[in-house]
Amino acid sequence: MTSPESPDRAHPSDEALNDFLGLLGYSSLGSFALLAEDAAHAPDMASRLMLSRMAAGELAGIDRVEFLVAERGGDFDALMASYRDLFAGYLLRAVPRDWWERLVRSYVGYNMIQDMLRNLASCVPEGLRAETAASVGSSGHDDFVAAVLTPVIASEPQLAARLGLWGRRVVGEALTIVQRLFQEHPALIEFACGEQDPGLRIQRLVTDLQAEHSRRLRRLGLNA
Amino acid sequence: MTSPESPDRAHPSDEALNDFLGLLGYSSLGSFALLAEDAAHAPDMASRLMLSRMAAGELAGIDRVEFLVAERGGDFDALMASYRDLFAGYLLRAVPRDWWERLVRSYVGYNMIQDMLRNLASCVPEGLRAETAASVGSSGHDDFVAAVLTPVIASEPQLAARLGLWGRRVVGEALTIVQRLFQEHPALIEFACGEQDPGLRIQRLVTDLQAEHSRRLRRLGLNA
Repeated sequence: MTSPESPDRAHPSDEALNDFLGLLGYSSLGSFALLAEDAAHAPDMASRLMLSRMAAGELAGIDRVEFLVAERGGDFDALMASYRDLFAGYLLRAVPRDWWERLVRSYVGYNMIQDMLRNLASCVPEGLRAETAASVGSSGHDDFVAAVLTPVIASEPQLAARLGLWGRRVVGEALTIVQRLFQEHPALIEFACGEQDPGLRIQRLVTDLQAEHSRRLRRLGLNA
Repeated sequence: MTSPESPDRAHPSDEALNDFLGLLGYSSLGSFALLAEDAAHAPDMASRLMLSRMAAGELAGIDRVEFLVAERGGDFDALMASYRDLFAGYLLRAVPRDWWERLVRSYVGYNMIQDMLRNLASCVPEGLRAETAASVGSSGHDDFVAAVLTPVIASEPQLAARLGLWGRRVVGEALTIVQRLFQEHPALIEFACGEQDPGLRIQRLVTDLQAEHSRRLRRLGLNA
C-alpha cells in the first residue's frame, strides 16, 4: 500500500512520531487510571474484577511504546505529561452522579479515544503500523458496558432519559478534547488518514468518531 | 518435607483452601486498587507509570487463583467479597494528608500483607505451594518507596518526625487488620506455619510481621 496523498506521510519526523507515541503512552496510562477508578466504584465483585483486569490490560503495550520513544531519543515521561491536563479536563468536566453515569462516561470517552487511536495507528507509516496498532487494545469494555446497561435502560424509562441527556453532555466534552488535542499538538494531524488538507482530515476523523459514538449509544437503546 | 505438627496440615479441606484462595484473590485486587490510587496521586509521570505498572502486576496471578477455586467448586467472587470490608477499614482509618504519608501507608500496609501472604503460602501443602507462592508478587514497591523517601527523610527532620508518628499509627491499623483477619476467618490459621496451638501460631506470625516492619522503617531512616 502506498500513501499518495502526501509525500511526507511515509517519513514523519522523529519529533512528530514521538508526539504520537507520547499520545499512545499517555492514553494507556490515562485509560488505566479511568478504568481502575471505575473498578474502585463497582457495586459488585465481578464487575470490579472485570474492570481491574481491563485497566491492567491497558498497560500491556506501554513498554514497547516507551522503547520506540527511547530509540528516537525522546523523553517518554515529558511527552506523556504534555497530554495530562487535556485528558484530566474530560474527567473534571464530566463528574458522574452514580454508577450508571460513570459507566456511560467511560463508555463514551474511553471508546472514542480508542477509536481515534485506532484511526491514527492505521495511518502511520507501514513499518511502524503493526507495532503501534498492537498498543491500541481491544479490551471488550464496550461489550461489558452494553451487557450491564442495556437491560437496565430497557426497563427504566426515567433512567434511560437521564442517561440519554448525560450521554449527549459527555460526548460534547469528549469531542472538545479531540479537537483541542490537534490544536495543541498539530504534528498529530500528520497521522490522521485521508485528505491533504489538515482541516478536512480532522473534520473527517471527527465525523467518523461521531458516527461510531451514535452506533454505540443506539446499542444501549439510547438516542445519540 | 513433612508437616509433623498437625495431621490435617497436609490435607486442608476444600473449604479452608478456598478461604485461603479467596484471601489471595482479594489481596491481589485490593493491592491493585491501592497502588492504582497511589499512581493517580503521583506528583510526577515517572512515579505514576511505575506505580501503575506495579498495580497491573498485582493481577498477574489472579486468573490461576480463580481457576483453583473453580476446580474446588468455590464461588470466587463471594470468597473475595468476604474480605472486602476488613481491608477497606485500613484505608478508611488511615487517610493520608499528603503524598509522603500516602507512600508510607502503602509501604507499611501493602508490604505487611505481602509478608503475611508469603508466610501463609510457604506453609500450604506441598502440592499447592508453588502455585500459590507464584501469586504473591515481588513488585519492588519497597525498593521504590525507599529510593524516593530515604533522601527526603534524611534532609527534612520535621517531615521525618511526622512520618515516624504516622508510621506507628498505620502499623497499628495494619496489625489490627491481620488479627481480625484470623478471627473472622479461623480456617486460615490452619495455613500459618509453626506450633500446634493456633494462638501461638498467630502470635509468632505477628511477631515476624512486626520484625519485618521494623526492618523496613529503619531502612527509611525512621524508628519503628
